[in-house]
Amino acid sequence: MRSCRVSLRGVLISRSHTESVLRVEQPHPCRKMADFVTFEDVKMARERIRKYLHYTPVLTSATMNKMTGREVYFKCENFQKTCAFKARGALNAVLSIKEGLTAPGAKGVVTHSSGNHGQALAWAAAMGGLESSVVVPNNTPKIKQEAIQGYGATLALCEPNPVSRKETCDKISKEKGYEVISSCDHPCVIAGQGTMAFEILEQVPDADAILIPASGGGMSAGISIAAKALKPDIKIFVVEPKGKNLEACLRSGERLWPNPPQFVDTIAEGIRIQQLGMNTFPILCKNAEKTVLTVTNDEIVKALRFALQRMKIVIEGASAAAMAAVMSDKMKSMDPSIKKVVVVLSGGNVDIDNLPWMHK
Amino acid sequence: MRSCRVSLRGVLISRSHTESVLRVEQPHPCRKMADFVTFEDVKMARERIRKYLHYTPVLTSATMNKMTGREVYFKCENFQKTCAFKARGALNAVLSIKEGLTAPGAKGVVTHSSGNHGQALAWAAAMGGLESSVVVPNNTPKIKQEAIQGYGATLALCEPNPVSRKETCDKISKEKGYEVISSCDHPCVIAGQGTMAFEILEQVPDADAILIPASGGGMSAGISIAAKALKPDIKIFVVEPKGKNLEACLRSGERLWPNPPQFVDTIAEGIRIQQLGMNTFPILCKNAEKTVLTVTNDEIVKALRFALQRMKIVIEGASAAAMAAVMSDKMKSMDPSIKKVVVVLSGGNVDIDNLPWMHK
Repeated sequence: MRSCRVSLRGVLISRSHTESVLRVEQPHPCRKMADFVTFEDVKMARERIRKYLHYTPVLTSATMNKMTGREVYFKCENFQKTCAFKARGALNAVLSIKEGLTAPGAKGVVTHSSGNHGQALAWAAAMGGLESSVVVPNNTPKIKQEAIQGYGATLALCEPNPVSRKETCDKISKEKGYEVISSCDHPCVIAGQGTMAFEILEQVPDADAILIPASGGGMSAGISIAAKALKPDIKIFVVEPKGKNLEACLRSGERLWPNPPQFVDTIAEGIRIQQLGMNTFPILCKNAEKTVLTVTNDEIVKALRFALQRMKIVIEGASAAAMAAVMSDKMKSMDPSIKKVVVVLSGGNVDIDNLPWMHK
Repeated sequence: MRSCRVSLRGVLISRSHTESVLRVEQPHPCRKMADFVTFEDVKMARERIRKYLHYTPVLTSATMNKMTGREVYFKCENFQKTCAFKARGALNAVLSIKEGLTAPGAKGVVTHSSGNHGQALAWAAAMGGLESSVVVPNNTPKIKQEAIQGYGATLALCEPNPVSRKETCDKISKEKGYEVISSCDHPCVIAGQGTMAFEILEQVPDADAILIPASGGGMSAGISIAAKALKPDIKIFVVEPKGKNLEACLRSGERLWPNPPQFVDTIAEGIRIQQLGMNTFPILCKNAEKTVLTVTNDEIVKALRFALQRMKIVIEGASAAAMAAVMSDKMKSMDPSIKKVVVVLSGGNVDIDNLPWMHK
């Protein structure tokens, strides 16, 4: 086992390299893990990464405001580097390694992801001058494989199941001395995604709520840490695809999901993982509203069309899920004092030649 | 003839209502008409309209910078109210009437346009509490007719030819006491479109050049007036679809176009009018570079795909023409001292179910 050090609070903490944060099991995660990443970590992350990233715009739509009866502000991370918020966390991880704050001496970074995190980590590694390897299932579309390689990462193919991808990832990590960067649970990733909160509250200082789509929950956890520190009365609503069953988990503080981890049946492929991360779940138990906004495929498709036709932006399913949430009946029934609502459009990586309503 | 007064410089000038600015013939327009609209007019227009409009963002693309060898900044007027810059000029015209600066006592506004200007004028009239009527050819797609009506305008159908639409427009003007608001040549429209220059030079203060797609030239003329006043060494490049033949006209200072006015064969329907306006031409003779960037349909389609796939924005053909221009060989051959280039993406009104590469 290679020893590495993780620090996000100025204190270097030794931990075993193979004891991945993904596998830290906690019987009462809400209490024990909620301060895993702090506001200070997010603040430092912001200073570390801001000059390499886009300060993404916030867009509004009079039609949307009329439809929802609220003031809705769309934070457009589809315009972020690599076209997704994932660039924030990945870059924070890479630069933290370069600065020797975490995994000093790591020769590179490795992750498993066929989606936005894989591209983002490949991009971030190239920016930071680190080697990178991305493990993707061997049935991943050629176009996605090429996108990852386009940013300079080495591609490693695995069998299309969670066990194979984890094993392949760990094998590369050991053989090459690469740090494993989990897509949602790595502390640097959570802190990096959280940097978005500073921009949101600069752009909409009196925001009452933020709606954030969640897969593993890295973005929602990170944003919740910084947003709650900056504006304690702000409400963080998590958006999920139908089948994720997050509300029951948040209300009970228990991981009620079946194991092994599975995918939810949703067209929003960026948020199809059912379980939140081991680190992100307790953070969200602490910071997020217990009410979760759940959206169906039909609602996602409708929002996607609205984005293209009315707002003139290209967004992916996960973003459309957040947009659908603000248009939902559940949102309509909420307290009218929640006036200014920020909706995070997480990314724009969608195949424009295969939008859901095409080829029918 | 109803007498009306036009003022954009604080001085009220009486002129005959039916002597439309469109028909003012000048033997040497470059000299006589170039100061038809002044910087002061644009400045006043900005104060008049800014609180009703979006301050549209500027987006950049590392890929685009690499491809072009310059720093390219896209001014996204596809995110403007009514999804096009036209909202600026139309609103300035309407509010100028409301303030009694032009056409005092006019009961409403009328124009002929089946495109963005028609929608923008309908929207602006509703904003300003004026009646409006938009004349469209009877073969205009239902969806466009509905969009105009959706903003509250009365629709008037005419035969699909320039004579019929002008006659219908004038008839309504006389019968209802409506002011005719030309889509490019009305002084309030030119000044309104020019307001974009203030934002551009706030967002990219050291811009070396601005690339602007032109149909009648209202936007390019307006921007050129304000941008040249704010930063005299800035270069204004007009972008045209192939067949417009603008460069020869600008170089000679003569209107070399055949009459009656005709449409150019381009997929960028927003810029298919061949002739610049009677008022805009002399302004551009004075302010614009003689070098004109000409783009083909193939180049426009390529840019449209780039916008959707890489930049995650939905733009219309005219915007794609400007994007194509910055990617063109002619642009590549230009002085490398033209480093920071702003490209105006004029609008986003495109049918997402009928993009040029679909249904082939």
